[in-house]
Amino acid sequence: MRILTGIQPSGTPHIGNYFGAMRQIINIQEKGETFVFLADYHSLTTSPEPEQLRKNVFELALNFLSCGVNTEKNTVLFRQSDVPEVCELTWILNNVTPVGLLERAHSYKDKIAKGFAPNNGLFSYPVLMASDILLYQSNLVPVGKDQKQHLEITRDIAIKFNNQYGDVFTIPEELIPEEVAIVPGTDGQKMSKSYNNTIPIFGKEKEIRKAIMNVVTDCKQLEEPKDPENCNVVALYKLVATPEELEEMKAKYRAGGYGYGHAKLALFDKLWAYFEPMRKRRAELERNPDFVWEVLRNGAEKARIEARKTMAKVREAVGLR
Amino acid sequence: MRILTGIQPSGTPHIGNYFGAMRQIINIQEKGETFVFLADYHSLTTSPEPEQLRKNVFELALNFLSCGVNTEKNTVLFRQSDVPEVCELTWILNNVTPVGLLERAHSYKDKIAKGFAPNNGLFSYPVLMASDILLYQSNLVPVGKDQKQHLEITRDIAIKFNNQYGDVFTIPEELIPEEVAIVPGTDGQKMSKSYNNTIPIFGKEKEIRKAIMNVVTDCKQLEEPKDPENCNVVALYKLVATPEELEEMKAKYRAGGYGYGHAKLALFDKLWAYFEPMRKRRAELERNPDFVWEVLRNGAEKARIEARKTMAKVREAVGLR
Repeated sequence: MRILTGIQPSGTPHIGNYFGAMRQIINIQEKGETFVFLADYHSLTTSPEPEQLRKNVFELALNFLSCGVNTEKNTVLFRQSDVPEVCELTWILNNVTPVGLLERAHSYKDKIAKGFAPNNGLFSYPVLMASDILLYQSNLVPVGKDQKQHLEITRDIAIKFNNQYGDVFTIPEELIPEEVAIVPGTDGQKMSKSYNNTIPIFGKEKEIRKAIMNVVTDCKQLEEPKDPENCNVVALYKLVATPEELEEMKAKYRAGGYGYGHAKLALFDKLWAYFEPMRKRRAELERNPDFVWEVLRNGAEKARIEARKTMAKVREAVGLR
Repeated sequence: MRILTGIQPSGTPHIGNYFGAMRQIINIQEKGETFVFLADYHSLTTSPEPEQLRKNVFELALNFLSCGVNTEKNTVLFRQSDVPEVCELTWILNNVTPVGLLERAHSYKDKIAKGFAPNNGLFSYPVLMASDILLYQSNLVPVGKDQKQHLEITRDIAIKFNNQYGDVFTIPEELIPEEVAIVPGTDGQKMSKSYNNTIPIFGKEKEIRKAIMNVVTDCKQLEEPKDPENCNVVALYKLVATPEELEEMKAKYRAGGYGYGHAKLALFDKLWAYFEPMRKRRAELERNPDFVWEVLRNGAEKARIEARKTMAKVREAVGLR
């Protein structure tokens, strides 16, 4: 059984990225062989600055490896563009993909609404995504709300191809993700780079402390009892504390005589400790970039073996051999 | 200076193909290094039967080699799908290709009007064509009326890419083709497979003789004078006869006492003799299919060296290295 997931490189990760996506990927590894790719071909659709893209890909690999992607066990971590076969498959799948199907894709409309130039990369994006999945004969694909439609499009394309040319592709199924934690940003909105309300995973101590001290609360005084169910500090503490520790803090909130400053200090300590092993691992890896590149090269080699198997079948089926 | 041209494999060639396109390509070889590719990735846009596609590619190679493509001199003959780098470039160029540019492409509208399924291969076709041209840093591209817009789109894409990422691509120029002979079919319309009015280049003697006997003329009797300027037989004779021989036939037409049957016999003899050396060469090659495949393999190797050079520059420029 093969699971596939990809993520776009996009700079400094924050704890919203971690609890919202990365941790899911880390946990998925337990379920079977997992292919994780760094989606740099996809990134091109929004024209990133080239030097930044290069850097972000490396950072993303570093972050995954620091946070627990285990390439010595079940996981194949690789750069999408190290397996250019995915572009050949994209061209071939284009020819069984109705233009109308792509016109109905939310992702394209959303990007255009956000002001991105309507280029054919954005328009054809779901076909590349289908190729990512089908090239590796993936059985399961974890999908968030955003990608539900993409997996449906992938299945449509695979079924159409198989009907026309014979049984080449595994039809992928959706992997229902575990419930994703809601991670509030320092201002109480969803944590997101675009809201400028993030707490970085790998920031300096001072930076993280400052971000936490800025978490918005109400104006209750130290001695007053407080509502732990409507407090951003508690919501963040929940992510990193044990259930007992969480209950303890909630009790203190209700009792009064416990200020938001106290709670924020407790949050900082827990958070700092939670990411301590990942921070250490990251510092090690940072000193050894060659190792990171080697992990990616090895991953690409494994991925490419699968890609070539699929492409041999595809080319045979459509008449290119 | 590099010239690039491609042609879609599409079955048995007729003399309309020869005088309308193949001969141009043969003659172009004199002008500089010429890359000629058999456009099988393009063929996929209209879902050919796989076995037929395979066969057509081989036949097209056979026809080119028989008719004078000289791979020992200036010409690199190769199968498009032997250089899958063109698909990677297509993906990358997608991201600098406005959707509106593709929506305005005639070829897409024409194919849809002809009843082909509107798939994303047909829609994205001009981007693949741009990749074909830019991948090999082509200087000159011979374009018929149909492809004029495609070359404009290619130039637009190349200029946009170079502006955004630096000077990577040679901007191709149009090679004004020599005047293309008008080749009437046996019914007087343009010779075309879809009108079922063709004379095959490599048909059996009987088949060709029959096709020529069926060429439509008016009903003038043997003894009457005839108008050589409005006769399909003369128009076809012009393609294969010397100017003197043509004048001689025209004189006989005007004089009277020379029937259409006589003219058709003269046409058959000339035509049969004209294609005689090509027919011989083809028979030789047919007995030696391994040689044809080897020519294509060698061509692909040469083409791939150029493709890899370009892709190294492209990947560096956009941030994939």
